[in-house]
Amino acid sequence: MNKQQLISKIKKKKSLLCVGLDTDIRKIPKFLIENYKNPIIEFNRRIINATSEFTVAYKINTAFYEADGIKGWQNLEETFKMIPEDIFVIADAKRADIGNTSKMYARAFFENINADAITVAPYMGEDSVSPFLEYNNKWIILLALTSNAGSKNFQYLNVDSENATKLYEKVLDTSSKWGTDKNMMYVVGATHPEDFKYIRKIVPNHFLLVPGIGAQGGNLEGVLENGLNEDYGLLINSSRGIIYASNKENFDIVAAKKAKELRDKIAEFLR
Amino acid sequence: MNKQQLISKIKKKKSLLCVGLDTDIRKIPKFLIENYKNPIIEFNRRIINATSEFTVAYKINTAFYEADGIKGWQNLEETFKMIPEDIFVIADAKRADIGNTSKMYARAFFENINADAITVAPYMGEDSVSPFLEYNNKWIILLALTSNAGSKNFQYLNVDSENATKLYEKVLDTSSKWGTDKNMMYVVGATHPEDFKYIRKIVPNHFLLVPGIGAQGGNLEGVLENGLNEDYGLLINSSRGIIYASNKENFDIVAAKKAKELRDKIAEFLR
Repeated sequence: MNKQQLISKIKKKKSLLCVGLDTDIRKIPKFLIENYKNPIIEFNRRIINATSEFTVAYKINTAFYEADGIKGWQNLEETFKMIPEDIFVIADAKRADIGNTSKMYARAFFENINADAITVAPYMGEDSVSPFLEYNNKWIILLALTSNAGSKNFQYLNVDSENATKLYEKVLDTSSKWGTDKNMMYVVGATHPEDFKYIRKIVPNHFLLVPGIGAQGGNLEGVLENGLNEDYGLLINSSRGIIYASNKENFDIVAAKKAKELRDKIAEFLR
Repeated sequence: MNKQQLISKIKKKKSLLCVGLDTDIRKIPKFLIENYKNPIIEFNRRIINATSEFTVAYKINTAFYEADGIKGWQNLEETFKMIPEDIFVIADAKRADIGNTSKMYARAFFENINADAITVAPYMGEDSVSPFLEYNNKWIILLALTSNAGSKNFQYLNVDSENATKLYEKVLDTSSKWGTDKNMMYVVGATHPEDFKYIRKIVPNHFLLVPGIGAQGGNLEGVLENGLNEDYGLLINSSRGIIYASNKENFDIVAAKKAKELRDKIAEFLR
Protein backbone atom coordinates (compact mmCIF):
# COMPACT_ATOMS: atom_id res chain seq x y z
CA MET A 1 0.00 0.00 0.00
CA ASN A 2 1.38 3.43 -0.85
CA LYS A 3 1.17 6.62 1.18
CA GLN A 4 -1.68 8.17 -0.78
CA GLN A 5 -3.77 5.01 -0.40
CA LEU A 6 -3.13 4.97 3.34
CA ILE A 7 -4.14 8.60 3.68
CA SER A 8 -7.35 7.91 1.73
CA LYS A 9 -8.28 5.04 4.07
CA ILE A 10 -7.71 7.25 7.10
CA LYS A 11 -9.86 9.99 5.62
CA LYS A 12 -12.66 7.59 4.70
CA LYS A 13 -12.73 5.76 8.03
CA LYS A 14 -11.91 8.79 10.18
CA SER A 15 -9.51 6.51 11.98
CA LEU A 16 -5.82 6.18 12.79
CA LEU A 17 -6.41 2.96 14.67
CA CYS A 18 -4.06 0.02 14.38
CA VAL A 19 -5.07 -3.11 16.28
CA GLY A 20 -2.22 -5.26 17.55
CA LEU A 21 -2.75 -8.99 17.22
CA ASP A 22 -0.51 -10.08 20.14
CA THR A 23 -2.40 -13.33 20.37
CA ASP A 24 -1.40 -15.53 23.32
CA ILE A 25 -3.01 -18.91 23.92
CA ARG A 26 -2.77 -18.23 27.69
CA LYS A 27 -4.92 -15.12 27.40
CA ILE A 28 -7.67 -15.91 24.93
CA PRO A 29 -11.14 -16.98 26.11
CA LYS A 30 -11.30 -20.57 27.41
CA PHE A 31 -14.33 -21.50 25.29
CA LEU A 32 -12.25 -21.08 22.14
CA ILE A 33 -9.68 -23.57 23.42
CA GLU A 34 -12.42 -26.04 24.35
CA ASN A 35 -14.38 -25.77 21.11
CA TYR A 36 -12.00 -25.03 18.24
CA LYS A 37 -9.24 -27.04 16.66
CA ASN A 38 -7.20 -23.88 16.13
CA PRO A 39 -8.28 -21.39 18.81
CA ILE A 40 -5.59 -18.82 17.86
CA ILE A 41 -6.93 -18.54 14.32
CA GLU A 42 -10.55 -18.49 15.51
CA PHE A 43 -9.67 -15.71 17.95
CA ASN A 44 -7.87 -13.66 15.28
CA ARG A 45 -10.65 -14.25 12.74
CA ARG A 46 -13.29 -12.94 15.13
CA ILE A 47 -11.19 -9.99 16.29
CA ILE A 48 -10.48 -8.98 12.69
CA ASN A 49 -14.12 -9.36 11.63
CA ALA A 50 -15.31 -7.35 14.62
CA THR A 51 -12.78 -4.52 14.48
CA SER A 52 -11.93 -4.01 10.81
CA GLU A 53 -14.67 -1.42 10.39
CA PHE A 54 -12.78 0.87 12.77
CA THR A 55 -9.17 0.19 11.87
CA VAL A 56 -6.82 1.31 9.13
CA ALA A 57 -4.06 -1.10 10.15
CA TYR A 58 -3.29 -4.35 11.95
CA LYS A 59 0.01 -5.05 13.63
CA ILE A 60 0.99 -8.68 13.97
CA ASN A 61 3.59 -9.22 16.66
CA THR A 62 5.76 -12.08 15.42
CA ALA A 63 7.01 -13.08 18.91
CA PHE A 64 3.59 -14.33 19.96
CA TYR A 65 3.55 -16.71 17.00
CA GLU A 66 7.20 -17.81 17.10
CA ALA A 67 6.66 -18.84 20.73
CA ASP A 68 4.51 -21.70 19.37
CA GLY A 69 7.12 -22.97 16.90
CA ILE A 70 6.07 -24.39 13.52
CA LYS A 71 2.38 -24.26 14.41
CA GLY A 72 2.89 -20.63 15.40
CA TRP A 73 4.51 -19.75 12.10
CA GLN A 74 1.57 -21.38 10.30
CA ASN A 75 -0.79 -19.25 12.36
CA LEU A 76 1.30 -16.17 11.58
CA GLU A 77 1.02 -16.76 7.82
CA GLU A 78 -2.69 -17.59 8.05
CA THR A 79 -3.38 -14.45 10.09
CA PHE A 80 -1.68 -12.25 7.50
CA LYS A 81 -3.92 -13.82 4.86
CA MET A 82 -7.05 -13.08 6.88
CA ILE A 83 -6.47 -9.32 6.94
CA PRO A 84 -8.74 -7.56 4.39
CA GLU A 85 -6.80 -6.33 1.33
CA ASP A 86 -7.57 -2.66 1.95
CA ILE A 87 -6.10 -2.60 5.46
CA PHE A 88 -2.44 -1.79 6.08
CA VAL A 89 -0.67 -4.72 7.72
CA ILE A 90 2.47 -4.47 9.81
CA ALA A 91 4.83 -7.30 10.74
CA ASP A 92 6.00 -6.17 14.17
CA ALA A 93 9.19 -8.18 13.99
CA LYS A 94 11.89 -5.67 15.04
CA ARG A 95 14.44 -7.32 12.78
CA ALA A 96 17.76 -6.02 11.34
CA ASP A 97 21.13 -7.61 10.68
CA ILE A 98 24.04 -7.18 8.26
CA GLY A 99 22.85 -6.46 4.70
CA ASN A 100 23.20 -10.03 3.47
CA THR A 101 20.91 -11.16 6.32
CA SER A 102 18.43 -8.27 6.32
CA LYS A 103 17.80 -9.19 2.68
CA MET A 104 16.54 -12.58 3.90
CA TYR A 105 14.26 -10.95 6.48
CA ALA A 106 12.89 -8.69 3.74
CA ARG A 107 12.20 -11.76 1.65
CA ALA A 108 10.44 -13.44 4.61
CA PHE A 109 8.10 -10.56 5.35
CA PHE A 110 7.64 -8.78 2.01
CA GLU A 111 7.64 -11.77 -0.36
CA ASN A 112 6.53 -14.92 1.49
CA ILE A 113 4.29 -13.00 3.85
CA ASN A 114 2.81 -10.08 2.01
CA ALA A 115 3.17 -7.49 4.81
CA ASP A 116 2.95 -3.80 3.93
CA ALA A 117 5.50 -2.90 6.58
CA ILE A 118 8.01 -4.37 9.00
CA THR A 119 9.35 -2.83 12.20
CA VAL A 120 13.16 -2.56 12.14
CA ALA A 121 15.76 -1.89 14.86
CA PRO A 122 18.27 0.89 14.08
CA TYR A 123 21.36 -0.10 16.08
CA MET A 124 23.23 -1.74 13.18
CA GLY A 125 22.87 1.26 10.87
CA GLU A 126 22.22 1.92 7.22
CA ASP A 127 23.23 -1.32 5.53
CA SER A 128 21.04 -3.28 7.96
CA VAL A 129 18.03 -1.19 6.93
CA SER A 130 18.50 -0.53 3.21
CA PRO A 131 17.63 -4.05 1.93
CA PHE A 132 14.09 -3.47 3.20
CA LEU A 133 13.84 -0.24 1.20
CA GLU A 134 14.31 -1.92 -2.16
CA TYR A 135 10.66 -2.97 -2.40
CA ASN A 136 7.99 -0.84 -4.08
CA ASN A 137 5.04 0.16 -1.90
CA LYS A 138 6.57 -1.55 1.13
CA TRP A 139 7.57 0.23 4.31
CA ILE A 140 9.97 -0.03 7.16
CA ILE A 141 8.98 1.31 10.54
CA LEU A 142 12.21 2.12 12.34
CA LEU A 143 12.40 2.18 16.15
CA ALA A 144 13.05 5.75 17.24
CA LEU A 145 11.64 6.31 20.75
CA THR A 146 10.01 3.21 22.16
CA SER A 147 7.18 3.07 24.69
CA ASN A 148 8.92 1.00 27.37
CA ALA A 149 10.90 2.01 30.46
CA GLY A 150 14.12 0.77 28.82
CA SER A 151 13.80 3.54 26.22
CA LYS A 152 15.58 5.69 28.84
CA ASN A 153 18.73 3.53 28.88
CA PHE A 154 20.12 4.56 25.51
CA GLN A 155 17.55 6.42 23.40
CA TYR A 156 17.77 9.58 25.52
CA LEU A 157 21.56 9.67 25.67
CA ASN A 158 23.01 12.98 24.63
CA VAL A 159 25.05 12.37 21.49
CA ASP A 160 25.93 15.96 20.68
CA SER A 161 26.56 18.08 23.74
CA GLU A 162 26.59 21.39 21.82
CA ASN A 163 23.12 20.98 20.38
CA ALA A 164 21.74 18.67 23.07
CA THR A 165 20.79 16.08 20.47
CA LYS A 166 19.52 12.82 21.88
CA LEU A 167 20.27 9.43 20.36
CA TYR A 168 16.69 8.93 19.19
CA GLU A 169 16.78 12.35 17.48
CA LYS A 170 20.04 11.42 15.78
CA VAL A 171 18.47 8.12 14.66
CA LEU A 172 15.55 10.07 13.14
CA ASP A 173 17.77 12.64 11.47
CA THR A 174 20.35 10.22 10.05
CA SER A 175 17.96 7.48 8.97
CA SER A 176 15.46 9.83 7.33
CA LYS A 177 18.03 10.26 4.55
CA TRP A 178 18.14 6.50 3.85
CA GLY A 179 14.62 6.48 2.46
CA THR A 180 11.69 8.85 2.11
CA ASP A 181 8.43 9.52 3.93
CA LYS A 182 6.91 7.21 1.31
CA ASN A 183 8.76 4.10 2.47
CA MET A 184 9.76 4.87 6.04
CA MET A 185 7.81 5.39 9.23
CA TYR A 186 9.03 5.54 12.84
CA VAL A 187 7.96 3.92 16.08
CA VAL A 188 7.37 6.57 18.76
CA GLY A 189 5.74 5.50 22.02
CA ALA A 190 2.64 7.23 23.35
CA THR A 191 4.37 7.28 26.74
CA HIS A 192 6.45 10.26 25.53
CA PRO A 193 3.78 12.73 24.31
CA GLU A 194 5.98 15.82 24.83
CA ASP A 195 8.68 14.46 22.55
CA PHE A 196 6.37 14.46 19.54
CA LYS A 197 6.99 18.23 19.28
CA TYR A 198 10.74 17.72 18.76
CA ILE A 199 10.15 14.71 16.56
CA ARG A 200 7.91 16.68 14.21
CA LYS A 201 10.73 19.21 13.73
CA ILE A 202 13.03 16.43 12.49
CA VAL A 203 10.53 14.36 10.52
CA PRO A 204 7.58 16.63 9.74
CA ASN A 205 6.22 14.43 6.95
CA HIS A 206 6.75 10.86 8.13
CA PHE A 207 4.08 8.61 9.51
CA LEU A 208 4.68 7.56 13.12
CA LEU A 209 3.45 4.24 14.51
CA VAL A 210 2.46 4.91 18.12
CA PRO A 211 2.26 2.01 20.57
CA GLY A 212 1.74 2.42 24.29
CA ILE A 213 -1.91 3.50 24.49
CA GLY A 214 -3.90 1.43 26.98
CA ALA A 215 -2.02 -1.23 28.97
CA GLN A 216 1.19 0.82 28.85
CA GLY A 217 -0.47 4.06 30.01
CA GLY A 218 0.32 6.35 27.06
CA ASN A 219 -1.35 9.71 26.55
CA LEU A 220 -3.58 9.75 23.45
CA GLU A 221 -4.53 13.43 23.54
CA GLY A 222 -0.92 14.57 23.89
CA VAL A 223 0.13 12.37 21.00
CA LEU A 224 -2.61 13.68 18.71
CA GLU A 225 -2.03 17.32 19.65
CA ASN A 226 1.71 17.14 19.06
CA GLY A 227 1.97 14.43 16.43
CA LEU A 228 -0.66 15.01 13.72
CA ASN A 229 0.58 16.52 10.46
CA GLU A 230 -0.88 17.52 7.06
CA ASP A 231 -1.14 13.86 6.02
CA TYR A 232 -2.48 12.78 9.43
CA GLY A 233 0.91 11.13 9.94
CA LEU A 234 -0.01 8.84 12.84
CA LEU A 235 -1.06 5.24 13.31
CA ILE A 236 -2.24 4.68 16.89
CA ASN A 237 -1.79 1.12 18.07
CA SER A 238 -3.72 -0.66 20.77
CA SER A 239 -3.24 -4.36 21.42
CA ARG A 240 -4.15 -5.74 24.85
CA GLY A 241 -6.64 -2.94 25.58
CA ILE A 242 -8.79 -4.13 22.67
CA ILE A 243 -8.19 -7.81 22.04
CA TYR A 244 -8.26 -8.84 25.71
CA ALA A 245 -10.98 -6.41 26.85
CA SER A 246 -13.16 -9.43 27.63
CA ASN A 247 -12.56 -13.16 27.95
CA LYS A 248 -16.21 -14.09 27.66
CA GLU A 249 -18.01 -15.56 24.66
CA ASN A 250 -18.80 -12.09 23.33
CA PHE A 251 -15.14 -10.98 23.49
CA ASP A 252 -15.27 -9.90 19.85
CA ILE A 253 -18.29 -7.65 20.46
CA VAL A 254 -16.46 -6.07 23.39
CA ALA A 255 -13.30 -5.67 21.30
CA ALA A 256 -15.35 -3.93 18.58
CA LYS A 257 -16.83 -1.60 21.20
CA LYS A 258 -13.35 -0.73 22.54
CA ALA A 259 -12.04 -0.22 19.02
CA LYS A 260 -14.97 2.05 18.16
CA GLU A 261 -14.49 4.08 21.35
CA LEU A 262 -10.82 4.63 20.58
CA ARG A 263 -11.56 5.41 16.93
CA ASP A 264 -14.23 7.93 17.99
CA LYS A 265 -11.82 9.66 20.38
CA ILE A 266 -9.26 9.86 17.59
CA ALA A 267 -11.85 11.10 15.07
CA GLU A 268 -12.48 14.20 17.21
CA PHE A 269 -8.95 15.34 16.39
CA LEU A 270 -9.16 14.72 12.64
CA ARG A 271 -10.27 17.31 10.16
CA MET B 1 25.53 -25.00 28.79
CA ASN B 2 27.23 -23.05 31.56
CA LYS B 3 30.43 -21.04 31.40
CA GLN B 4 32.66 -23.67 32.96
CA GLN B 5 31.42 -26.30 30.51
CA LEU B 6 32.07 -23.97 27.58
CA ILE B 7 35.59 -23.25 28.81
CA SER B 8 36.26 -27.00 29.16
CA LYS B 9 35.16 -27.64 25.56
CA ILE B 10 37.43 -24.89 24.33
CA LYS B 11 40.36 -26.29 26.27
CA LYS B 12 39.75 -29.83 25.07
CA LYS B 13 39.27 -28.95 21.40
CA LYS B 14 41.83 -26.11 21.36
CA SER B 15 39.22 -24.18 19.42
CA LEU B 16 37.18 -20.99 19.63
CA LEU B 17 35.50 -21.72 16.35
CA CYS B 18 31.80 -21.10 15.80
CA VAL B 19 30.43 -22.13 12.42
CA GLY B 20 27.52 -20.06 11.13
CA LEU B 21 24.78 -22.02 9.40
CA ASP B 22 23.54 -19.24 7.10
CA THR B 23 22.07 -21.81 4.77
CA ASP B 24 20.60 -20.38 1.57
CA ILE B 25 18.99 -22.61 -1.06
CA ARG B 26 20.45 -20.31 -3.75
CA LYS B 27 24.01 -20.99 -2.60
CA ILE B 28 24.19 -24.67 -1.72
CA PRO B 29 25.58 -27.21 -4.22
CA LYS B 30 23.23 -28.04 -7.07
CA PHE B 31 23.53 -31.82 -6.66
CA LEU B 32 21.83 -31.57 -3.26
CA ILE B 33 18.83 -29.85 -4.81
CA GLU B 34 18.64 -32.45 -7.56
CA ASN B 35 19.02 -35.51 -5.31
CA TYR B 36 17.48 -34.76 -1.93
CA LYS B 37 13.94 -34.11 -0.82
CA ASN B 38 15.18 -31.58 1.75
CA PRO B 39 18.48 -30.20 0.45
CA ILE B 40 18.77 -27.60 3.27
CA ILE B 41 18.73 -30.30 5.94
CA GLU B 42 21.07 -32.53 3.94
CA PHE B 43 23.48 -29.60 3.56
CA ASN B 44 23.36 -28.74 7.27
CA ARG B 45 23.68 -32.38 8.29
CA ARG B 46 26.82 -32.82 6.19
CA ILE B 47 28.34 -29.50 7.30
CA ILE B 48 27.74 -30.33 10.97
CA ASN B 49 29.13 -33.86 10.61
CA ALA B 50 32.20 -32.59 8.80
CA THR B 51 33.02 -29.62 11.02
CA SER B 52 31.91 -30.57 14.54
CA GLU B 53 35.34 -31.96 15.37
CA PHE B 54 36.79 -28.45 15.06
CA THR B 55 34.03 -26.31 16.50
CA VAL B 56 32.86 -25.38 19.98
CA ALA B 57 29.73 -23.62 18.73
CA TYR B 58 27.26 -23.32 15.88
CA LYS B 59 25.36 -20.16 15.09
CA ILE B 60 22.06 -20.57 13.30
CA ASN B 61 20.97 -17.40 11.56
CA THR B 62 17.18 -17.35 11.79
CA ALA B 63 16.70 -15.03 8.80
CA PHE B 64 17.87 -17.66 6.34
CA TYR B 65 15.19 -20.05 7.59
CA GLU B 66 12.36 -17.52 7.99
CA ALA B 67 12.86 -16.55 4.35
CA ASP B 68 11.40 -19.97 3.46
CA GLY B 69 8.28 -19.59 5.62
CA ILE B 70 6.78 -22.61 7.41
CA LYS B 71 9.15 -25.02 5.68
CA GLY B 72 12.02 -22.80 6.79
CA TRP B 73 10.88 -22.81 10.41
CA GLN B 74 10.70 -26.62 10.25
CA ASN B 75 14.25 -26.67 8.93
CA LEU B 76 15.31 -24.27 11.69
CA GLU B 77 13.96 -26.55 14.42
CA GLU B 78 15.38 -29.65 12.77
CA THR B 79 18.81 -28.04 12.43
CA PHE B 80 18.88 -27.16 16.13
CA LYS B 81 18.12 -30.80 16.91
CA MET B 82 20.99 -32.00 14.70
CA ILE B 83 23.68 -30.14 16.67
CA PRO B 84 25.56 -32.53 18.99
CA GLU B 85 24.60 -32.05 22.66
CA ASP B 86 28.09 -31.00 23.73
CA ILE B 87 28.33 -28.09 21.29
CA PHE B 88 27.15 -24.59 22.22
CA VAL B 89 24.33 -23.47 19.93
CA ILE B 90 23.39 -19.89 19.21
CA ALA B 91 20.14 -18.62 17.73
CA ASP B 92 21.35 -15.60 15.79
CA ALA B 93 17.98 -13.91 15.85
CA LYS B 94 18.77 -10.34 16.99
CA ARG B 95 15.45 -10.05 18.76
CA ALA B 96 14.27 -7.64 21.53
CA ASP B 97 10.97 -5.92 22.24
CA ILE B 98 9.02 -4.65 25.26
CA GLY B 99 9.25 -7.07 28.20
CA ASN B 100 5.90 -8.71 27.58
CA THR B 101 7.05 -9.53 24.03
CA SER B 102 10.70 -10.42 24.74
CA LYS B 103 9.29 -13.04 27.10
CA MET B 104 7.64 -14.70 24.09
CA TYR B 105 10.90 -14.62 22.12
CA ALA B 106 12.67 -16.21 25.10
CA ARG B 107 10.02 -18.92 25.12
CA ALA B 108 10.51 -19.48 21.37
CA PHE B 109 14.27 -19.90 21.50
CA PHE B 110 14.97 -21.24 25.01
CA GLU B 111 11.94 -23.50 25.49
CA ASN B 112 10.60 -24.64 22.11
CA ILE B 113 14.00 -24.53 20.46
CA ASN B 114 16.60 -25.53 23.00
CA ALA B 115 19.22 -22.92 22.05
CA ASP B 116 22.01 -22.14 24.52
CA ALA B 117 22.07 -18.50 23.49
CA ILE B 118 20.23 -15.88 21.50
CA THR B 119 21.59 -12.68 20.00
CA VAL B 120 19.71 -9.62 21.26
CA ALA B 121 19.59 -5.98 20.09
CA PRO B 122 20.20 -3.36 22.81
CA TYR B 123 18.29 -0.29 21.55
CA MET B 124 15.16 -0.85 23.65
CA GLY B 125 17.07 -1.14 26.92
CA GLU B 126 16.91 -3.21 30.08
CA ASP B 127 13.31 -4.46 30.17
CA SER B 128 13.67 -5.70 26.59
CA VAL B 129 16.66 -7.81 27.62
CA SER B 130 15.88 -9.02 31.14
CA PRO B 131 13.22 -11.65 30.21
CA PHE B 132 15.97 -13.60 28.45
CA LEU B 133 18.09 -13.58 31.61
CA GLU B 134 15.56 -15.49 33.69
CA TYR B 135 16.67 -18.87 32.34
CA ASN B 136 19.33 -21.02 34.00
CA ASN B 137 22.33 -21.89 31.86
CA LYS B 138 21.01 -19.83 28.96
CA TRP B 139 22.77 -16.82 27.50
CA ILE B 140 22.05 -13.64 25.69
CA ILE B 141 24.60 -12.24 23.29
CA LEU B 142 23.99 -8.52 23.11
CA LEU B 143 25.00 -6.49 20.07
CA ALA B 144 27.77 -4.11 21.08
CA LEU B 145 29.98 -3.29 18.09
CA THR B 146 28.81 -5.02 14.94
CA SER B 147 30.96 -6.06 11.99
CA ASN B 148 29.13 -4.14 9.26
CA ALA B 149 29.74 -0.68 7.76
CA GLY B 150 26.54 0.58 9.41
CA SER B 151 28.16 0.08 12.83
CA LYS B 152 29.62 3.56 12.24
CA ASN B 153 26.21 5.26 12.03
CA PHE B 154 25.30 5.09 15.71
CA GLN B 155 27.58 2.72 17.64
CA TYR B 156 30.55 5.12 17.49
CA LEU B 157 28.59 8.21 18.49
CA ASN B 158 30.12 10.06 21.38
CA VAL B 159 27.64 9.90 24.25
CA ASP B 160 29.75 11.52 26.93
CA SER B 161 31.95 14.31 25.61
CA GLU B 162 34.01 14.63 28.81
CA ASN B 163 35.17 11.04 28.83
CA ALA B 164 34.85 10.42 25.09
CA THR B 165 32.61 7.42 25.69
CA LYS B 166 31.12 5.90 22.59
CA LEU B 167 27.60 4.50 22.38
CA TYR B 168 28.85 0.92 22.08
CA GLU B 169 31.01 1.42 25.21
CA LYS B 170 28.02 2.80 27.08
CA VAL B 171 25.96 -0.22 25.94
CA LEU B 172 28.65 -2.54 27.31
CA ASP B 173 29.00 -0.66 30.57
CA THR B 174 25.28 -0.22 31.29
CA SER B 175 24.12 -3.65 30.17
CA SER B 176 26.88 -5.57 31.96
CA LYS B 177 25.03 -4.75 35.19
CA TRP B 178 21.81 -6.39 33.94
CA GLY B 179 23.31 -9.88 34.10
CA THR B 180 26.69 -11.47 34.69
CA ASP B 181 29.51 -12.89 32.61
CA LYS B 182 27.79 -16.23 33.21
CA ASN B 183 24.64 -15.36 31.26
CA MET B 184 25.71 -12.53 28.95
CA MET B 185 28.09 -12.31 26.04
CA TYR B 186 28.56 -9.52 23.48
CA VAL B 187 28.78 -9.35 19.71
CA VAL B 188 31.94 -7.54 18.64
CA GLY B 189 32.90 -7.61 14.97
CA ALA B 190 36.35 -8.75 13.84
CA THR B 191 36.40 -5.70 11.57
CA HIS B 192 37.28 -3.55 14.61
CA PRO B 193 40.34 -5.34 16.06
CA GLU B 194 41.71 -2.19 17.76
CA ASP B 195 38.51 -1.71 19.74
CA PHE B 196 38.95 -5.00 21.58
CA LYS B 197 41.50 -3.25 23.81
CA TYR B 198 38.91 -0.73 25.05
CA ILE B 199 36.24 -3.40 25.24
CA ARG B 200 38.36 -5.60 27.50
CA LYS B 201 38.67 -2.68 29.93
CA ILE B 202 34.87 -2.50 30.24
CA VAL B 203 34.03 -6.21 30.14
CA PRO B 204 37.22 -8.07 31.08
CA ASN B 205 35.44 -11.34 31.90
CA HIS B 206 32.68 -11.66 29.32
CA PHE B 207 32.76 -13.91 26.31
CA LEU B 208 32.61 -12.05 23.00
CA LEU B 209 31.06 -13.56 19.88
CA VAL B 210 33.15 -12.32 16.96
CA PRO B 211 31.65 -12.35 13.46
CA GLY B 212 33.30 -10.78 10.46
CA ILE B 213 36.20 -13.15 9.78
CA GLY B 214 36.36 -14.26 6.15
CA ALA B 215 33.78 -12.79 3.75
CA GLN B 216 33.62 -9.55 5.76
CA GLY B 217 37.40 -9.09 5.93
CA GLY B 218 37.96 -9.09 9.69
CA ASN B 219 41.38 -9.40 11.29
CA LEU B 220 41.75 -12.66 13.22
CA GLU B 221 45.20 -12.01 14.68
CA GLY B 222 44.24 -8.57 15.98
CA VAL B 223 41.11 -9.98 17.58
CA LEU B 224 43.00 -12.78 19.34
CA GLU B 225 45.83 -10.52 20.50
CA ASN B 226 43.48 -7.93 21.96
CA GLY B 227 40.46 -10.01 22.89
CA LEU B 228 41.59 -13.19 24.67
CA ASN B 229 41.18 -13.28 28.45
CA GLU B 230 41.80 -15.72 31.31
CA ASP B 231 38.76 -17.81 30.31
CA TYR B 232 39.62 -17.58 26.60
CA GLY B 233 36.60 -15.27 26.31
CA LEU B 234 36.10 -15.41 22.54
CA LEU B 235 33.96 -17.34 20.09
CA ILE B 236 35.19 -16.72 16.54
CA ASN B 237 32.45 -17.11 13.95
CA SER B 238 32.88 -17.94 10.31
CA SER B 239 29.87 -18.63 8.09
CA ARG B 240 30.27 -18.16 4.34
CA GLY B 241 34.04 -18.75 4.40
CA ILE B 242 33.46 -22.30 5.60
CA ILE B 243 30.05 -23.51 4.49
CA TYR B 244 30.31 -22.14 0.94
CA ALA B 245 34.02 -22.82 0.42
CA SER B 246 33.07 -25.27 -2.33
CA ASN B 247 29.88 -26.02 -4.25
CA LYS B 248 31.07 -29.39 -5.49
CA GLU B 249 30.04 -32.82 -4.25
CA ASN B 250 32.82 -32.79 -1.67
CA PHE B 251 31.75 -29.43 -0.24
CA ASP B 252 31.66 -30.93 3.26
CA ILE B 253 35.25 -32.15 3.00
CA VAL B 254 36.33 -28.69 1.87
CA ALA B 255 34.32 -27.11 4.70
CA ALA B 256 36.05 -29.40 7.20
CA LYS B 257 39.44 -28.41 5.76
CA LYS B 258 38.60 -24.70 6.08
CA ALA B 259 37.28 -25.20 9.61
CA LYS B 260 40.44 -27.08 10.59
CA GLU B 261 42.67 -24.38 9.09
CA LEU B 262 40.89 -21.67 11.05
CA ARG B 263 40.87 -23.77 14.24
CA ASP B 264 44.61 -24.40 13.83
CA LYS B 265 45.32 -20.68 13.39
CA ILE B 266 43.30 -19.98 16.52
CA ALA B 267 45.00 -22.80 18.48
CA GLU B 268 48.39 -21.10 18.04
CA PHE B 269 47.12 -18.29 20.27
CA LEU B 270 45.67 -20.53 23.00
CA ARG B 271 47.64 -21.63 26.03
